[in-house]
Amino acid sequence: MVLIDGKATAAQIKAEIKEEVDRIVSNGGKRPHLAAILVGHDGGSETYVKNKVLACEACGFQSTLIRFEDDITEEALLAEVDRLNCDESVDGFIVQLPLPKHISEQKVIEAIDYRKDVDGFHPINVGRMAIGLPCYVSATPKGILELLRRYNVPTSGRKCVILGRSNIVGKPMAQLMMQKQYGDSTVTVCHSRSATLKKECQEADIIIAAIGKPGFLTADMVKPGAAIIDVGTTRVPDPSRKSGFRLSGDVDFEHVAPLCSFITPVPGGVGPMTICMLMQNTLSAAKKEFYR
Amino acid sequence: MVLIDGKATAAQIKAEIKEEVDRIVSNGGKRPHLAAILVGHDGGSETYVKNKVLACEACGFQSTLIRFEDDITEEALLAEVDRLNCDESVDGFIVQLPLPKHISEQKVIEAIDYRKDVDGFHPINVGRMAIGLPCYVSATPKGILELLRRYNVPTSGRKCVILGRSNIVGKPMAQLMMQKQYGDSTVTVCHSRSATLKKECQEADIIIAAIGKPGFLTADMVKPGAAIIDVGTTRVPDPSRKSGFRLSGDVDFEHVAPLCSFITPVPGGVGPMTICMLMQNTLSAAKKEFYR
Repeated sequence: MVLIDGKATAAQIKAEIKEEVDRIVSNGGKRPHLAAILVGHDGGSETYVKNKVLACEACGFQSTLIRFEDDITEEALLAEVDRLNCDESVDGFIVQLPLPKHISEQKVIEAIDYRKDVDGFHPINVGRMAIGLPCYVSATPKGILELLRRYNVPTSGRKCVILGRSNIVGKPMAQLMMQKQYGDSTVTVCHSRSATLKKECQEADIIIAAIGKPGFLTADMVKPGAAIIDVGTTRVPDPSRKSGFRLSGDVDFEHVAPLCSFITPVPGGVGPMTICMLMQNTLSAAKKEFYR
Repeated sequence: MVLIDGKATAAQIKAEIKEEVDRIVSNGGKRPHLAAILVGHDGGSETYVKNKVLACEACGFQSTLIRFEDDITEEALLAEVDRLNCDESVDGFIVQLPLPKHISEQKVIEAIDYRKDVDGFHPINVGRMAIGLPCYVSATPKGILELLRRYNVPTSGRKCVILGRSNIVGKPMAQLMMQKQYGDSTVTVCHSRSATLKKECQEADIIIAAIGKPGFLTADMVKPGAAIIDVGTTRVPDPSRKSGFRLSGDVDFEHVAPLCSFITPVPGGVGPMTICMLMQNTLSAAKKEFYR
C-alpha cells in the first residue's frame, strides 16, 4: 500500500512554482499576483484564506487580502469584483465562499472576469473544462488529477467511482476522469439516491469519495488493490485537540488502507493539493496561458 | 415492451409549440425567429437544415436560411455570426456543423452570443448546464430527457450507462442524468477504452447508446427489463433504398427489443426529438426565458 503524501507533493509543486517565478522575475517579468476577498469571519474561511496567503509567499507571489464585514451589500461586493476585474496588477482573484445569505454566490461568481477566475467556478471555465478546452480547472479536482499522475496510479480504461455530485468536486471530477486527455477512465457517479452504490464501489479500481460523511467508505465496499482518494474534510468534535475538532475523511482509513494499492490520508492528502493548484492556476493567469 | 415513438412525440411537442406561438402572436407578440447558417453542400447537413426549416414552419416560427459556399473565409463567417448576434429580429441561430477544415468550429461556436446559442454548444451554456443553471441544453440530450419523462421511464436512483463520451451527446447526457433535477440516476460513462463496458451494460437499468457503431449493443449485454435509448444514426449502404443508404442505430434492435421495458427505434426515436428540442430552445429564446 502506497500512502499518497499530498503535503509533500504540494510542497514539491510549490517549490517548482517558486523556481519558475524566480526565473520570470529575474528576466524582468512581473511577479504573479493573487487577490482574495473574504467576507465576514467564518472560522473555516479564515483558515483557508490564511493558508492561501501563506502559499502565495511560498510561491513567490504577491498577494492581496481584501476584507469586508458580513453586512456588506451585494452591490458593494459586485463593485469590488469589478474593480479587481479591471485592476491590471491583479492576475487572478477569488471570492472565498460561503458568502452571507443576502448575497447571491452565483451572481458574484458570474461577475468575475473568467480570465481571472482562478477558482474555475465561472460557467465559461466549467464549460470549457467539460468539452476539454484549456481553462482554469477548479482546484480540488485538478489536485486529485495531479496526485494520480505523480503517483502513476493507472486510470486509463479503469473503473473510477465518484461518490458525490457537488459542483465543486463530484461533477467536475467525473468530467475530467472520463476525458481521454485526463483520466480516460470508465466513470460512475454515485450519490444519495444511488441504489447500487455499494456494488459500484466494490467493482471500482479507483474510488474518489466526496460526500462529507465521516467514515462512510468501509472496508467491505473496497476491492483489494483499489486506489482510494478521500476528499472528505468534515470537522468532528474532538475535545483532546486544542482547536476542539479534528478533520475526518469519508473513508474508514484504518480498515480500508490495508486493502488498497494507493490511499490519501485526511488530513495531508487532497487538502494541501487544493491550495497548491490555486497557485498553479494563478501562475497560468500571470503567464496568460489560457486567455488573452 | 414499449416502443418509444419519437416521431409522434415530436409531432405532439411541435403542436404544443405552435399553439403557444399562435397565442403569443394573437396577443400582439413577435413570432419566434430561427436563423441557420449552412456552409457548403454536405448531404447530411443539407437534410438536417431542410428539416429544421420544415420544423420552423410546423411550429409557426419565422426561419431564415443563410447559405455560403465552402470557400468562405473564417473571417467572413465570423462577420456573419456577429451580424446575427446584433440582429434583433433573430431570436436564436445555429451554424450547421461540420464546417470546412480551414474554419475553426470552436472559434465560430464561441463567437455566437450565448443568449442566441439555441444549439447550446457555447461554453457558457455547457457550463451552466453542468452546474444545473437555466440555459439552452443541447438538443439531443434534451430530447432524450423529454422522451424519458413523457414515457415515465423510471430514472431516479437507477443505474444509467451511457456509451460514448462525445461533447454533443455522451458528456452532456451524463451531466444531465446525474443531476437531481433531471435524471437523478447513478451514471456510468463507457467508451472505447472501458475494460468493463459489457458488464456495466449488463447491470444497467437504462442504456443510452451514442457511439456510432451499428448494432454494437447486443442482446447478451442487456438486462431484461432495461430501457434502451439508441442515439446512433450511422449511414449504412443499402442498394435497395432510393437514397442508397439506411440509418442504423447502435443497438441490435431485433434481438434487444424483446428484452426491454422501453426502446427507441432508429429511425423514428431520438432523431425527430433533436430538431424538435431546437424548436423548444428557439421558443425559449424568443420568450427570453433564460437570459436578458
